[in-house]
Amino acid sequence: MTVATRRRLDADARRRQLIELGLSMLSREPREQVAIDRIAKAAGISRGLLFHYFPTKRHYHVAVVRAAAEHMLEVTEPDPDVPLAERLRASLGAYIDFVADNQALYVSLVRGAAGRDEELQEIFDQTRTRIADRITANLGVDRTTPALRTLLRGWIGFAEDSPLDWLQHGDLSRDTLVALQERALVRSLDPLT
Amino acid sequence: MTVATRRRLDADARRRQLIELGLSMLSREPREQVAIDRIAKAAGISRGLLFHYFPTKRHYHVAVVRAAAEHMLEVTEPDPDVPLAERLRASLGAYIDFVADNQALYVSLVRGAAGRDEELQEIFDQTRTRIADRITANLGVDRTTPALRTLLRGWIGFAEDSPLDWLQHGDLSRDTLVALQERALVRSLDPLT
Repeated sequence: MTVATRRRLDADARRRQLIELGLSMLSREPREQVAIDRIAKAAGISRGLLFHYFPTKRHYHVAVVRAAAEHMLEVTEPDPDVPLAERLRASLGAYIDFVADNQALYVSLVRGAAGRDEELQEIFDQTRTRIADRITANLGVDRTTPALRTLLRGWIGFAEDSPLDWLQHGDLSRDTLVALQERALVRSLDPLT
Repeated sequence: MTVATRRRLDADARRRQLIELGLSMLSREPREQVAIDRIAKAAGISRGLLFHYFPTKRHYHVAVVRAAAEHMLEVTEPDPDVPLAERLRASLGAYIDFVADNQALYVSLVRGAAGRDEELQEIFDQTRTRIADRITANLGVDRTTPALRTLLRGWIGFAEDSPLDWLQHGDLSRDTLVALQERALVRSLDPLT
């Protein structure tokens, strides 16, 4: 391993560490309270060094949001070993657990903290497209019709927004929320699939 | 009528005129392109006078969004003369027509242009609560359960987001979109009502 390669790996590892720290803090506290200084301190580096890895605070935030989206997609990946009829419920359960584990970040993102940031919007759009593609693949649908595509986009809105109410009120079991989301999708599909 | 009263009425009428102008421009063009100068010019007043009625650009934007929400609630008001079974479809049709008439503003708001603006978030929350209250009233439900409340919040997310896909692709009829939204609600309600 050359010195250059080793240095590159070190930098990647550092970047990952900083993103993990941000993910962990932003999942518990509103973004306004999570200062770059605290992230740098927790990583044991200077504020200046953090900005060496992420040129601006926005770059850093985008990287954290991208990591959160990837993480959500990973944990909700449908398991082909689970019978088809239970697969959606299993993925939705993992999704709700992800929401509960990352409350502050989740709420701020779904409530529009992305604003008009095009890079964040693109992360959201790509994530939604991957979710819709997964669903059509698991439905065994060959060709997505406009109606099915629009329905799935609507249902993703359902799946994104219903947890906000669930978190705010705390008076509904996780399993009931999962069942609501599952029913809303399964029953809306007919006669589109 | 005293001079003071007449002046107050003039000010209210001017405010309404400025809001109407903003609504009309923001419905057609992205917010970034709608400069305060153009609004003032269209109203035949100076930029300074506009800021007399609305202290900041943000105050003005909030007033326009509030007017848009009120307008949407008005046009979608369920008509008691329409049979119950057709009432939801009629309101959803009016809603989609509102979306089509106010595309730019609608897309920017649903796609998070509110960001972390608490006043805009409150307008959204109040609007959603009023829609949910209307639905429960029309369902003849006495008491909203947590599950019904969360379901309605989810479905409002469906109704808000599915038109984004519809507008973006332009390959689905308005009536099909209305039918998708109607089915998603009606079929999800059982066994909650």
